[in-house]
Amino acid sequence: MNGAVDLPLGQSELGFTAAGDARVRRSVLPSGVRVLSEQVPGSRSVTVGFWVAVGSRDEHHADGALPATYGSTHFLEHLLFKGTAERTALDIAISFDSVGGEHNALTAKEYTCYYARVQDRDLPMAIGALADMFTSSLLDPLEFDNERGVILEELSMAGDDPADVANERFFEAVLGEHPLGRPIGGDPETIRAATRDAVWAHFQANYRPQDLVVTVAGAVDHDRLVGDLERALTRAGWDLTAQAPPVERRSTEPAYLETGAAVTVVSRPIEQVNLLMGVPGLVATDERRSTMSVLNTAFGSGMSSRLFQQVRERRGLAYSVYSFAQAYSDAGIFGMYAGCAPAKAGTVAALMRTELERVAEHGITPDELHRAAGQLGGASALALEDSDTRMSRLGRAELTLGEFVDLDEALRRTALVTVDDVQSLAQDLVSRPFSLVAVGATDESAFHYAIEPAASTLDVG
Amino acid sequence: MNGAVDLPLGQSELGFTAAGDARVRRSVLPSGVRVLSEQVPGSRSVTVGFWVAVGSRDEHHADGALPATYGSTHFLEHLLFKGTAERTALDIAISFDSVGGEHNALTAKEYTCYYARVQDRDLPMAIGALADMFTSSLLDPLEFDNERGVILEELSMAGDDPADVANERFFEAVLGEHPLGRPIGGDPETIRAATRDAVWAHFQANYRPQDLVVTVAGAVDHDRLVGDLERALTRAGWDLTAQAPPVERRSTEPAYLETGAAVTVVSRPIEQVNLLMGVPGLVATDERRSTMSVLNTAFGSGMSSRLFQQVRERRGLAYSVYSFAQAYSDAGIFGMYAGCAPAKAGTVAALMRTELERVAEHGITPDELHRAAGQLGGASALALEDSDTRMSRLGRAELTLGEFVDLDEALRRTALVTVDDVQSLAQDLVSRPFSLVAVGATDESAFHYAIEPAASTLDVG
Repeated sequence: MNGAVDLPLGQSELGFTAAGDARVRRSVLPSGVRVLSEQVPGSRSVTVGFWVAVGSRDEHHADGALPATYGSTHFLEHLLFKGTAERTALDIAISFDSVGGEHNALTAKEYTCYYARVQDRDLPMAIGALADMFTSSLLDPLEFDNERGVILEELSMAGDDPADVANERFFEAVLGEHPLGRPIGGDPETIRAATRDAVWAHFQANYRPQDLVVTVAGAVDHDRLVGDLERALTRAGWDLTAQAPPVERRSTEPAYLETGAAVTVVSRPIEQVNLLMGVPGLVATDERRSTMSVLNTAFGSGMSSRLFQQVRERRGLAYSVYSFAQAYSDAGIFGMYAGCAPAKAGTVAALMRTELERVAEHGITPDELHRAAGQLGGASALALEDSDTRMSRLGRAELTLGEFVDLDEALRRTALVTVDDVQSLAQDLVSRPFSLVAVGATDESAFHYAIEPAASTLDVG
Repeated sequence: MNGAVDLPLGQSELGFTAAGDARVRRSVLPSGVRVLSEQVPGSRSVTVGFWVAVGSRDEHHADGALPATYGSTHFLEHLLFKGTAERTALDIAISFDSVGGEHNALTAKEYTCYYARVQDRDLPMAIGALADMFTSSLLDPLEFDNERGVILEELSMAGDDPADVANERFFEAVLGEHPLGRPIGGDPETIRAATRDAVWAHFQANYRPQDLVVTVAGAVDHDRLVGDLERALTRAGWDLTAQAPPVERRSTEPAYLETGAAVTVVSRPIEQVNLLMGVPGLVATDERRSTMSVLNTAFGSGMSSRLFQQVRERRGLAYSVYSFAQAYSDAGIFGMYAGCAPAKAGTVAALMRTELERVAEHGITPDELHRAAGQLGGASALALEDSDTRMSRLGRAELTLGEFVDLDEALRRTALVTVDDVQSLAQDLVSRPFSLVAVGATDESAFHYAIEPAASTLDVG
């Protein structure tokens, strides 16, 4: 174990606590590398993720020598697949393809994750390839220009998807000038302007041992994992004897958001209006996060939810309609989505807002509370059958929450939520400034009613 | 077991054979209901599917008293969630939501499937609800009109997705007048014209005991499953003592397709061109289907594939590029997809065709063959960790193939494929008429080169 600090169940180390599950282990190497694993009995496969707590929100806060460019985090993510001194891009692709593994990466607003799902016997290969990519990518200038074209096509694809466009604009609308409001991938201008030197500086500044978090779930033995990882990182050229503390987690103090009630319309000659409406939500560590899960479930998740019943079942106004809560370290979003006919968009927006205000005014029923708890527990149990869900849960525990919560503990917390808690949270949410984004053949006048406080008087009974 | 015919491993019954896996069982009830299960050791969840071998292709071949309407199969699928004598639509939604289960349905070209994924303890509930929906749905006229609005929104959503539009048009282009070429959901005109009587006739004609196939995978005991199912179907009003043979599988004789090389452009003011190009493929029972899997994998699946390397890695022309093979009882499709800039669409189309012709001319390497076999085996092993994949595999075995093939047997067949087999199949494919569909800001003149046989002379080395 080479001097790693190991965290048994229930103890606390560097602000990290683990509750409930004896099969989760965490080690901090002297170099600051953190390793978390969850062994799943009977599993024959494994998912491994290499994480850094750097996302699109950090692009102008990176401490590299050159200014980073919007979209450079995502650009770098692409380039890590393009070759090292030891492996060409094709070598990397063949390594995973030839064993039928999944390998990919995800750039988010607050982190970047490179991951692979493979059969148990292929875990050492996956660790070797990911460690090489993470430490030793070349960012070859020719590959850089080639990949620029790929990324521009990726942005074009998203630009042709009205739901994607609505989502990007919704974050801007709700979070205002906060860096979490920016699109993850940059835009065509910033990608065309991106330089290899700036992305290289970004790589050097943010992919150090103390930045790396490795999480693994499935068929994994923790001690062997730590040994394999140390060997792979050392072989790739890292000095793991140099002492460094892990990078600290971000501040969890809610940010001040300068944003007001507003309607944004992106006019497009398409069939549906893609409608998003919502307010600033909770930060990831907010103590009301279990309450938010219950509210979001009863209000807008599943076919029995308020939104589905009111908008689709009773009126046939939409095919897809739901709510969502997304939480980051210092800001969050609570939103509602529907895709509907242009002539009905104003009605749907008013219905969505009215339903949320109805919960604020009257709460949910004990039946709805009970069902939401059952839904959250059952859905979590099913989701945790996939090792990638468990791998991500470990990453979120380390990077965002500072604690690991197993299913039993999560259910215990959910069971403590009361109808009063849900109503109070709904009251808090409806008091915040509503933003509305519509992409489609519509205009702002359709939504004045939904954005006025008077919307609560609409009769939707 | 009430007189059910039970199929042990390796035996053949009614043209159905099972090879390799002792945990698969099949029963045929006297009423013609078929039940297949696969018990997965250690699983705590289960996926159940209720299938009928009726899809959009059958809409004018249904033997109901009234003529069916295009889209009526999909319309009926929606209506089965809208209530029975015993359960309202909300009751059904609450049953599944309150345990966090997934429940949904899928209308395809040759079948319709209602399915649920739940924890083991909730399987009897899922069987009870699905049996009630399948046997006793009311198709209430008011719900019918409401759901018409929902389906029109679903069609609009698909109509706003350029990749969806390209896919629908591609099937029409390759399969011509064959009923498999039609869109599954109908179109707004046929949905607006649909009547409750026609959909009711469709329901009565095609949802009889001899039409029903139930497949279950995960935490399931076959004998208990058959008992639960018989009780649920009887309770819902079915007479399971009436004797009927199961409906026969479709003809697997390849259909004559009247189709020629053609370019179809759907002009849209969007950023990317969504490009599909391909030819008629193999039927589902073709003895070359393992060869097709190997060809499709080496040619267009994964980052090391020919298409990905030529179009994305070497030239940066697309973000998403791949090939696919879809097989039905009497027709199939082999296709290639890319999303790219309008100015590059002609080049990408020529590259795709040239690469396929290169395989026809020179074959693939032994290395590529070996990698493709590894990729197929590993990806299948990972996919089979999900009980829904196993549930679907059973349905496909019963409805389409007439045999169950476990992973070991599938790998054995893949290992028999030679480089010559792959080259021969590629030669066969390139001799068939190519169709090309492009959705985006382009026109037919961009693709003349790709659709001419002379495309093979393009230098893409």
